[in-house]
This record gives sequence, structure tokens and C-alpha cells, in this order.
Amino acid sequence: MDYLQIVEQIKKKRSFLCVGLDTDITKIPQFLLDNEDPVFEFNKQIIDATAPYVIAYKPNIAFYEAAGVSGWKSLEKTINYINLLHPEIFIIADAKRGDIGNTSKMYARAFFENFNCDAVTVAPYMGRDSVTPFLQFKNRWIILLALTSNDSASDFQFIKNSQNGKYLFEEVLYKSKPWGTKDNMMYVVGATQAKQLKKIREYIPEHFLLIPGVGAQGGSLKEVSEYGMNDHCGLIVNSARSIIYAGQAHDFAKTAGKTAKEIQEEMKELLIQKGII
Amino acid sequence: MDYLQIVEQIKKKRSFLCVGLDTDITKIPQFLLDNEDPVFEFNKQIIDATAPYVIAYKPNIAFYEAAGVSGWKSLEKTINYINLLHPEIFIIADAKRGDIGNTSKMYARAFFENFNCDAVTVAPYMGRDSVTPFLQFKNRWIILLALTSNDSASDFQFIKNSQNGKYLFEEVLYKSKPWGTKDNMMYVVGATQAKQLKKIREYIPEHFLLIPGVGAQGGSLKEVSEYGMNDHCGLIVNSARSIIYAGQAHDFAKTAGKTAKEIQEEMKELLIQKGII
Repeated sequence: MDYLQIVEQIKKKRSFLCVGLDTDITKIPQFLLDNEDPVFEFNKQIIDATAPYVIAYKPNIAFYEAAGVSGWKSLEKTINYINLLHPEIFIIADAKRGDIGNTSKMYARAFFENFNCDAVTVAPYMGRDSVTPFLQFKNRWIILLALTSNDSASDFQFIKNSQNGKYLFEEVLYKSKPWGTKDNMMYVVGATQAKQLKKIREYIPEHFLLIPGVGAQGGSLKEVSEYGMNDHCGLIVNSARSIIYAGQAHDFAKTAGKTAKEIQEEMKELLIQKGII
Repeated sequence: MDYLQIVEQIKKKRSFLCVGLDTDITKIPQFLLDNEDPVFEFNKQIIDATAPYVIAYKPNIAFYEAAGVSGWKSLEKTINYINLLHPEIFIIADAKRGDIGNTSKMYARAFFENFNCDAVTVAPYMGRDSVTPFLQFKNRWIILLALTSNDSASDFQFIKNSQNGKYLFEEVLYKSKPWGTKDNMMYVVGATQAKQLKKIREYIPEHFLLIPGVGAQGGSLKEVSEYGMNDHCGLIVNSARSIIYAGQAHDFAKTAGKTAKEIQEEMKELLIQKGII
């Protein structure tokens, strides 16, 4: 999927919502446990109910890996289901991978070829040659960690470079920008760090940002849009727990859909205010 | 496995060699492709031939993920095989994981509970709360990336903190040291960075270091031992391609075993010189 196709989806659906498929077998409604593959059954129902309101799904790979081979089967079925029924929806493998070149290439194959995802999240610690192998795949994206939403983000991401006064997360933006383009790179910026978005937009005015942390982690959608939105929207805002676990009854999916719709309506207003739709 | 058990293995086998199971289906001997699971068959033969000379195996998870569900099956069989036949050998899942707390916990379950590995490699970018969930498992280890062996390691790892003059990789050592102990944490230090080892030992004199990059990547075993060895050895040196792909004929495993034995003999001399055995 290319940049313009993402922008078109945003305009058509009046949404920049991504639903995080952080599917935890201990948190899904109990009655689903009778199914052969409860995790896939849960995802399927969540996808059916939320697809009209979202432009992206983000399976959190750890939640599938935790169950080993059977978890990877649930993940594969989930990705195939989205690609089959909703080929217009962007699929992000939230995997936070990154290794020496020949190994990163294998991770790229895993998510782009074997699993047919559109994007994969990548950790920057090992530098350029750990990132560029992901950029060799046409119309596929990497989403590089810049500023994360967790409390300990400041442990290293706010270390200031003695040479130029830049924080590490700024250095990541600044150094990595020429490795790709706005057509194959995005950045992760936690919603809990909304006030840094203005500064971040100075480095990367055009790139899409993947914003986790709205909802359960406490980030504000309004603040994120105020400081982070550009002329093409440029935001993909993820919400996981507060949507997928909104209901626990037999109509859990309906409740999730309703919650997604509420967020989509808020997003619509923000897109109108900005003159994007 | 605990610290003393690792040290005992080193003394008994007169080796601190780890064999990296970076098993690439396009690089293994062609005649193996007739097997139902060529990757597992290759690993099994490599393990049978090298086990007397190694104290650890390190499956590189990317190489299994690249094949999706079937790759995870090969990985599972490989880990089970090592645990069954060689329970004394330390198993490192080289996965470079790390995410927000609830997600890191899932990765820890994947590798410690579902797969019964002894250790997992972890990337530090997201800070403390992305690392500590791995430390809740008794007699399991994390191996945190400090200084990696790839060319681009310097992109971020050598950024100097304006507050204290420390490089980022030193900051990782310094800040993370109190998160765990020498009994549940190790660090990755690339063999290509041997001269930094002296400085690294000032921060963490007792911790084990996992040293990749000897062999195909050009690091020197002698230098690594000179600058990095402590009174308990404190080193696990990984070699992958130069051992597992040493032979391509029907006796490839024998050739791999011979190569591993040569390295083990060199290690024995270094352990004797240091008075460890």
C-alpha cells in the first residue's frame, strides 16, 4: 500500500484509527474458549465489527508468540482474514524487531513475504544497517521507534547528545530520515508524549506517525492531533485494550464496534477542523 | 540454569563456545531438502556433532520466523531436542525483543515458558520497564544489547551523553546494572569491538558477556579473551556461519564438529593461561 492509498482511506473512512490486536487469551470473553481457535475467533469478530471505522490493524506479535506454534497459526489466520475481507486496510506487525543486516532481512521476509503485512515496527538501537534491509520491499513500510509511550522511555530516549544537544529520539529521526522516504518509513511517537510532537514535526513534517498510548495508557487524541497532524493527516492512532476489551458479554464485538465508532466520530471532527475532509 | 552451573560447564568442557543456529534453508546442504523438516534435520545433525565442544546454542529467531508457522515448528523441535539430549547446554533465544511492560511479559512467556529457553536477547531502547518483565523468571536470563558487532553500531551506541560524557552503550550498562544481578543478566558485546571490553569490564566485572562476531564477522578470539575474560571466564563466544556452514558435503556435520573442536581447543588454551582450568 502506498502513501496516497493510506491518505485516501483516511478521507473515505473519516478516520485515522488503528485497532491494536493485543489478543490475550486470559482476557477474552470466556464463552469463546470453546472454539477451536479462540484467539482467531475473537479477532474475527472484532475485525467484523470495527472494520468500517478503522484504517489499520496492528497485531501485537508478542501476544501470539506467547502461545508458540499455535499462536503463530492464530496470527497467520488473522492476517489472512484481514487481507481477504478488507484488502484496503493497512496491517502493521508490531514486532519491534531489528538485528544485523542478514538477520533483519529474515525478519523482513517473515512479515512482508510470509505474512503479507504492510508494515513492521523496528527498534533503532543497532543503527542503519539493521533498518535498511526492511526498506528493500516495494510498497512495504517500516515504522521506526522514536519516542515510546512507556514510563521508562526517558531512560535512554532523552539522553542528550554532547555534540549537538539533540535528544536520542531526535537523533533517531534526524539520522534515519535519509535512509528511506515518507513513502516507506513512519515513526512511532507515543501519545503520552504529545507535547514533543511539535518539535518532531520540525524534523519530519511529511512522514506518517504511528501513535500508540491513546486510551488505556492515558494519551489524549485532541492533543495528538493538535501537535502532530499535517496536511495529509499524517497520523495513525492506535487503540487496543480500550476497544477490544470494551465488552465481555456475548455482544463484546458489538461493544468494541461502538467504541471504535465513537473514536472515529471524534477523529472525523478533528479532520474537518484541519480542513482535510 | 544458574551462574555456577554455567561456570561448571565451562570448566568441564574446557570451552566457552556458543554455536549460533542461524539456519537458512538456502544455505544448508541440498540433499537435506528431501527431509520432511530440513531445517530441523540440519540442526539435529549439527547439534549431535558439536555438543561435546559447546556450552550454549543460540537459535537466531529471525531465521525461523522467516518461514512462518513451519519455521516455528522447526524452532520448537530444535529447542526440545537440545533440552532432551543435552539438558546441561544453555539455550539462548536470539530474538532482540523489547516492548512496553505487558508486551515484554508476553515475549518472556514465549521464550521461557512456551519454548523453555534459558535466555533471551533484549534491546534496551525502551528502557527499564521493557526489560524488567523478563527478570521475573527464576533461573532465566536476559542478555541486553550493549555494543553490537555490526558496522552501524556507532550510529547511536556511540552518542555521548552531554551530562556525564558516557557513550550510550556505557549508559545502558550503567543504568541497567541495578535492574538485575549477575545471576539473571548478561550483555551483548560484539567481538568486533574488543578494545572496548576493558572499559566495559569496569562497569560490569562479574557479568557474563555474550560475544557475537567471532568468525564470519571478523572478531578475534584472542583479543576478546584478553580484554573481556574475568576470573569465572565470564564469556560466551558465539560463532554461527563459520561453524554450521563449514561443510556442504554429506559429512557437513562432521566438518562442523571438527571446526567447533578447533575453536574449543583454542579456548582451552586461553582458559589455562588465565588459570581458570
